[in-house]
Amino acid sequence: MVGPHRVVIVGGGFAGLYCAQKLKRARAQITLIDRRNFHLFQPLLYQVASGALSPAEIASPLRVVLSAQKNARVWLGEVVDFDPGAREVILSDGARTGYDTLVVATGSRHHYFGRGEWESRAPGLKTIEDATEIRRRILLAFEKAEREPDPEERRALLTFVIVGGGPTGVELAGALGEIANDTLRNDFRLVRPPEANILLLEGSDRILSAFPPGLSVRAESDLIRLGVRTRTRAVVTELDAKGVTVKLGDRIERIHARTVLWAAGVQASPLGKLLAERTGAHLDRAGRVVVEPDLSIPGYPDIFAIGDLANFSHQLGQPLPGIAPVAMSQGRYVARLVRARLEGRKAPPYRYLDKGTLATIGRSRAVAVIAGLRFAGPLAWLVWLFVHLMYLVEFENRVLVLIRWAYNYFTRNRGARLITGPHD
Amino acid sequence: MVGPHRVVIVGGGFAGLYCAQKLKRARAQITLIDRRNFHLFQPLLYQVASGALSPAEIASPLRVVLSAQKNARVWLGEVVDFDPGAREVILSDGARTGYDTLVVATGSRHHYFGRGEWESRAPGLKTIEDATEIRRRILLAFEKAEREPDPEERRALLTFVIVGGGPTGVELAGALGEIANDTLRNDFRLVRPPEANILLLEGSDRILSAFPPGLSVRAESDLIRLGVRTRTRAVVTELDAKGVTVKLGDRIERIHARTVLWAAGVQASPLGKLLAERTGAHLDRAGRVVVEPDLSIPGYPDIFAIGDLANFSHQLGQPLPGIAPVAMSQGRYVARLVRARLEGRKAPPYRYLDKGTLATIGRSRAVAVIAGLRFAGPLAWLVWLFVHLMYLVEFENRVLVLIRWAYNYFTRNRGARLITGPHD
Repeated sequence: MVGPHRVVIVGGGFAGLYCAQKLKRARAQITLIDRRNFHLFQPLLYQVASGALSPAEIASPLRVVLSAQKNARVWLGEVVDFDPGAREVILSDGARTGYDTLVVATGSRHHYFGRGEWESRAPGLKTIEDATEIRRRILLAFEKAEREPDPEERRALLTFVIVGGGPTGVELAGALGEIANDTLRNDFRLVRPPEANILLLEGSDRILSAFPPGLSVRAESDLIRLGVRTRTRAVVTELDAKGVTVKLGDRIERIHARTVLWAAGVQASPLGKLLAERTGAHLDRAGRVVVEPDLSIPGYPDIFAIGDLANFSHQLGQPLPGIAPVAMSQGRYVARLVRARLEGRKAPPYRYLDKGTLATIGRSRAVAVIAGLRFAGPLAWLVWLFVHLMYLVEFENRVLVLIRWAYNYFTRNRGARLITGPHD
Repeated sequence: MVGPHRVVIVGGGFAGLYCAQKLKRARAQITLIDRRNFHLFQPLLYQVASGALSPAEIASPLRVVLSAQKNARVWLGEVVDFDPGAREVILSDGARTGYDTLVVATGSRHHYFGRGEWESRAPGLKTIEDATEIRRRILLAFEKAEREPDPEERRALLTFVIVGGGPTGVELAGALGEIANDTLRNDFRLVRPPEANILLLEGSDRILSAFPPGLSVRAESDLIRLGVRTRTRAVVTELDAKGVTVKLGDRIERIHARTVLWAAGVQASPLGKLLAERTGAHLDRAGRVVVEPDLSIPGYPDIFAIGDLANFSHQLGQPLPGIAPVAMSQGRYVARLVRARLEGRKAPPYRYLDKGTLATIGRSRAVAVIAGLRFAGPLAWLVWLFVHLMYLVEFENRVLVLIRWAYNYFTRNRGARLITGPHD
């Protein structure tokens, strides 16, 4: 064989980037392909949506992160097809690049359960553009209310509905509660922001269903303190420019709300389907590729699907959750596996070591399950703070985010409160 | 008369915001109307365009700035007409608001000398969206070049043309020189960023024509050190998707360039024309409203035009330049005049006290004229740094910008290098 082993990684999220970095000392030529030029720290995206942080503070250019890693190159490009026979990936401009090992880690998008037309009405939170759009809608609603003479319309402008009570929905609702109660408290002359009506709708019987029930109760009472009301077993049946229609058990309720945010469902990236078609792999209902115990595609030991794109059920009998720690761990595992193969060694099957789960609910409040211990309140919040700071990729961003947070904490301000984008 | 004196200020730039703030202790009800929810520190906008700063670091929400000023309220809205007879301004949603004193400070936009179709090809730099679009184009050009097999096309991708050799053009060219020579130096595997071709085109016989000739020469040699070539007496005659055609004296030259940036001309906001139509005031060629010695509109002592929108020629026999210090000083003057009138006093006519002019050309280099003294180099750069930090409106932004600058200085990095916006 001529030349080093060629590893092509598609997607620069947690799974793809950690895989590339962990291959630093491998005798391999790594090509990381992403549609965007940066790695996005998605767990803090809701803080961009709420004006607490700037986009650049949670995004790191992939070139900067991999600049010193001489066996890695970064390509800005969109993969549109795979050719497992020729061992090539195909880009949107027709370019092809060959691989010896292919790692597909293109993540997930939000999902509207067959109601794609809801997307423009209720944006989800996956990209920088999503976050600035949500920020725009939240701030604009208060601005419009300040000049709205009709009390009913003002009420609808000050009603915010968040659909989905998982960690993203809870964190977004908590941030909205803080915006209304603290950040904007004194900034308006007519509107009283604390009177805003913030509703968190969850389809199942409790929010944060991945946490133990006790912590769900705690999170709900923390949200109430921030003025957020939670409705469980609430299924959205209609969503239009005037508001949402919700089925609560037998009851149908209509909520007039100008701002609806979507945190309800995710679906794997469409590249998963393409990969399945090209390799005969199975997809689950969420569009994830069902993988082998070593995260490879059945019948293709050199093709891996990892992160939110993968359905790995060999450990728990059900898929691992689509969270950052799983993605990081799978990226690192595949890198170790590739190195082992290059050195003629065997690697054990993949196993996820759950170090814990965290969710924050505004200033000084969070819930956490770490090493089986359940806790809540300021200590959980400090752990949350520390963990998120430590995993930010660039040192510069850690310093900037720390300063922003300190400012936000002491002044109850949010410095990145800009309404940008297309003129309304 | 019932109620306090109503001052309506249209535009929250330097002129409008400083006017509102200086009216803090006046017995007046101030309404500041702007289409955007933030004050933008335009002198540092080129640093957003070059990825050195984040938008929120140079933008301050108007509500935050005026939050504690109880006699001021902020309206997010677009003024579309004036009714001097009824003493009202009219907003795009049909709302009207009455004034006793009207201050119009809606600034300027870039101007393409009758070639409006050039705008999409060569964006100018006036808004946050302009800056992120320019940042997108600069970074995307390097990214595309990295994957471009054709050497001629790669050359065109790595050719950057900046039209206009005033302070904005010079600062943008200097920043581009630094991006190519320092920031991106080690980030690519095929492209050699220092080989980028950066051209600064100026129509007159020297760049920075508002400065003494010696400093123009100095700035030009500083730019050469950063790899920027200057062409004076260069008039753009054509501008299309492939590049620009330039008339240099008798010679016509064609430059193949994928990225062209516009810093050549500005025109006053269209509200100037509207104001002139409603009051009979004169406009100059750049669309600015010709004002009286006290900055009021002839025949309308209670209507003022200030900042980039005004042509004030009573002091120098020619209009004052459209720069931030003039706008701030005119805003403060009108506030003092209103207060004097409310207290039954007379105010002297407006006079601009020129404290100096500054322009920076990359790391450690700048030119300055302060109190008649001309200087250049690191000292001028430190003065530039200090002045710009001090005039940033929020303390939080001062701290964040200082940290960013320190990082950028020592690491030669630019942390806000994101390609965002519509998918290419």
